Amino acid sequence: MNKQVVIIGGGFGGLYAASRLKDAPVDVTLIDRRNHHLFQPLLYQVATGALSPADIATPLRGLLKHQRNARVMMGEVVDFDTDNRQVILRDGTVRYDTLIVASGSGKNYFGNDQWSKWAPGLKTVEDATEIRRRILGAFEAAERESDPEAVRAWLTFVIIGGGPTGVEMAGALAEVAYETLRHDFRSINPADARIILVQSGDQILPMYHEDLSNRATAMLQRLGVEVRTGGRVTDVNAHGVTLSSGDQQDFIAARTVVWTAGVRASSLGKALAECTGAALDRGGRVVVEPDLSVPGHPEIFVIGDLAHAAHQTGEPLPGVAQVAIQQGRYVGNVIRARLRGANIRPFAYQDRGNMAIIGRGAAIAEIGKLRLSGRLAWPAWLAIHLMYQADVENRILVFIQWLWNYLTRSRSAMLITDRQPSATTTQTRLSVKLATDSGTWPRIG
Amino acid sequence: MNKQVVIIGGGFGGLYAASRLKDAPVDVTLIDRRNHHLFQPLLYQVATGALSPADIATPLRGLLKHQRNARVMMGEVVDFDTDNRQVILRDGTVRYDTLIVASGSGKNYFGNDQWSKWAPGLKTVEDATEIRRRILGAFEAAERESDPEAVRAWLTFVIIGGGPTGVEMAGALAEVAYETLRHDFRSINPADARIILVQSGDQILPMYHEDLSNRATAMLQRLGVEVRTGGRVTDVNAHGVTLSSGDQQDFIAARTVVWTAGVRASSLGKALAECTGAALDRGGRVVVEPDLSVPGHPEIFVIGDLAHAAHQTGEPLPGVAQVAIQQGRYVGNVIRARLRGANIRPFAYQDRGNMAIIGRGAAIAEIGKLRLSGRLAWPAWLAIHLMYQADVENRILVFIQWLWNYLTRSRSAMLITDRQPSATTTQTRLSVKLATDSGTWPRIG
Repeated sequence: MNKQVVIIGGGFGGLYAASRLKDAPVDVTLIDRRNHHLFQPLLYQVATGALSPADIATPLRGLLKHQRNARVMMGEVVDFDTDNRQVILRDGTVRYDTLIVASGSGKNYFGNDQWSKWAPGLKTVEDATEIRRRILGAFEAAERESDPEAVRAWLTFVIIGGGPTGVEMAGALAEVAYETLRHDFRSINPADARIILVQSGDQILPMYHEDLSNRATAMLQRLGVEVRTGGRVTDVNAHGVTLSSGDQQDFIAARTVVWTAGVRASSLGKALAECTGAALDRGGRVVVEPDLSVPGHPEIFVIGDLAHAAHQTGEPLPGVAQVAIQQGRYVGNVIRARLRGANIRPFAYQDRGNMAIIGRGAAIAEIGKLRLSGRLAWPAWLAIHLMYQADVENRILVFIQWLWNYLTRSRSAMLITDRQPSATTTQTRLSVKLATDSGTWPRIG
Repeated sequence: MNKQVVIIGGGFGGLYAASRLKDAPVDVTLIDRRNHHLFQPLLYQVATGALSPADIATPLRGLLKHQRNARVMMGEVVDFDTDNRQVILRDGTVRYDTLIVASGSGKNYFGNDQWSKWAPGLKTVEDATEIRRRILGAFEAAERESDPEAVRAWLTFVIIGGGPTGVEMAGALAEVAYETLRHDFRSINPADARIILVQSGDQILPMYHEDLSNRATAMLQRLGVEVRTGGRVTDVNAHGVTLSSGDQQDFIAARTVVWTAGVRASSLGKALAECTGAALDRGGRVVVEPDLSVPGHPEIFVIGDLAHAAHQTGEPLPGVAQVAIQQGRYVGNVIRARLRGANIRPFAYQDRGNMAIIGRGAAIAEIGKLRLSGRLAWPAWLAIHLMYQADVENRILVFIQWLWNYLTRSRSAMLITDRQPSATTTQTRLSVKLATDSGTWPRIG
């Protein structure tokens, strides 16, 4: 019988690991809470109404349907039984010979989870459409308001977190307010909107060289964004945000706040550490060996945002798509090599450079020692954003909509869609046990 | 001061009335609960994952932004004060000289509103994404199930209502199950899915000639749909649907049920009738004069699905897009004519024909006495579905995705997106009064 490889998470890491195992003599099971792979770097475009969710999300089954040794399971992993090599789902168990944990990361409110109600994060499709609803709804509310102070609060938007997500969000939001919606209202002038990007450190985009960060700040300011550094957020509520700097406190009245200020590793890191004795770093990431396996457990790999992989430079690799993709491919290669009885070198990340887009036509980029900034040739912007799209159709659609939006300065998906009443999701309505303990694949009818 | 024309509803009727008043010496206010115009005839394509909501919905502000005499207001109308010529919103009032009520229709469960929980209708974007979630979730649940009877229930889909919406939904769903998802699963075979279309009368598509309805039935059956006529639904619950025919009762175990069996006029019809003494028909539609105004109230028009306009033939015009569009334009013309002191003839509907699409490539059509059926030349299908798209971009996007889907037999938007926790919508969070009583337009800053 084939070795059972179970992969948790259908993001970049899990997906690339699965497809690297195509035609290998293993059976692959990919488990995800959702049915789709999400291109997270473009979520901010859904949140600002430029793209639809389906433009950046692709069903996992569709991506893997022609890979005969792979099956997709929609389910939620809650724990592990590493002694018996089982993954424990909310409603079942799955056996494995080799396990790849690639469940990613979520939002980190640094102990203030109650802020999440007023400052949603941006990690999932639902996050993005909710933020979109709040942004567009704020302009609608301002249009109906007669009290000038209330209008100002509705037209003030605060983005907390000056990393790539916050910067890209701020730039896009400035374009929404100052260009896209310019003629749409009669009582208010959307150009009166204030967009404030808040960063606790001294520098936005701290992972870039200081010169590039300064360029990015200037670009944002040219777009109309107010960049505020050096102040920590000490409160978020329905009315706005409080920033503290030393003794000074500053309240910003804002009805719409977005949180992009921290990530926290998936809770499965903790579950894995409890089973295996692995160490976790401060962000909850699992410290892994040079071959990305859990110490003492060569049959368990951790990759992507959940992994703390520091053997190359002493510093852990960042939680970015590039790293997850390369790690996914690497682990696929390791598994293949082991089946052949071959050795394989430790994981060696190759940094192909990073880029942050500021609004529609400007960017900063750092490739090794090369630093670039300025107006972005649109082919380059396009190429980069399309590069990792999971399938050809999405590339065409994103291209068409991008081109349309660029030429007409419009945005394609500025819908306010209501939230639905709460309910349990499909998988928790099930109480099933999988028939996988028998060790055979169920035959198709 | 210009006459104030207030239009309630941004569907086909309201939108075409508003744009017909472009450059007329009036001020137009279009009020809708939502921020977008929805192309309802293609909602079933969102519900079956072929299109995204933004492909068939366009923000009203964007559509009207270059019409200087028009403004859009997002709000919910709850009542009228026709003596004082005021529209009463949940959170304000709006004054009018002329009123056009075009608030459309909603679902009708014929007194069994509790069925709506298990058999959602298909009138809004949220309805469509919820139905999509249930359909795709059913296949996911079936894939995880080990009990064969439960698998069968998850793979049984019932569509209640054999009108155009139900028929188109059934055909599309058959293609999802038997083509799109064909290779996507490993434990189940999606081809085992049962799709059952239930019609209480003897004939599906009763508005068409019997020959065409029979053709449509045959086309559906060729697609794999079971068409059941002559049975009334007497119960819907979490486990399935009960059909009754004479003494006989039949329970169909089905976890996914969709309701397309009845429409009921917007509740504003009742509110209007109470103020004006207008008569309502059995479906709640307002009986109007030959010029579509409310009897005794020449300043109030009712158009679209909310209107019972029977003067042409004795039978009321159907609640279809064509009728709403022509009535919208007509009322715009009446208002213009009155301003010039001219007379205008009664409304005369011109039936340009109807078409129902059965799956991807077949249709029936009736144009006057001309009856057509069969494999549809795809240019015709396309032309018709694109014809009423509100803007050029949507036409391009729908065309691209349609072409892709047609050639690859795939579907573009098969996402399961979770429902969000319940909350009040933006407009009910406001408690504002509009400053419109002063009679002046607020100036833009």
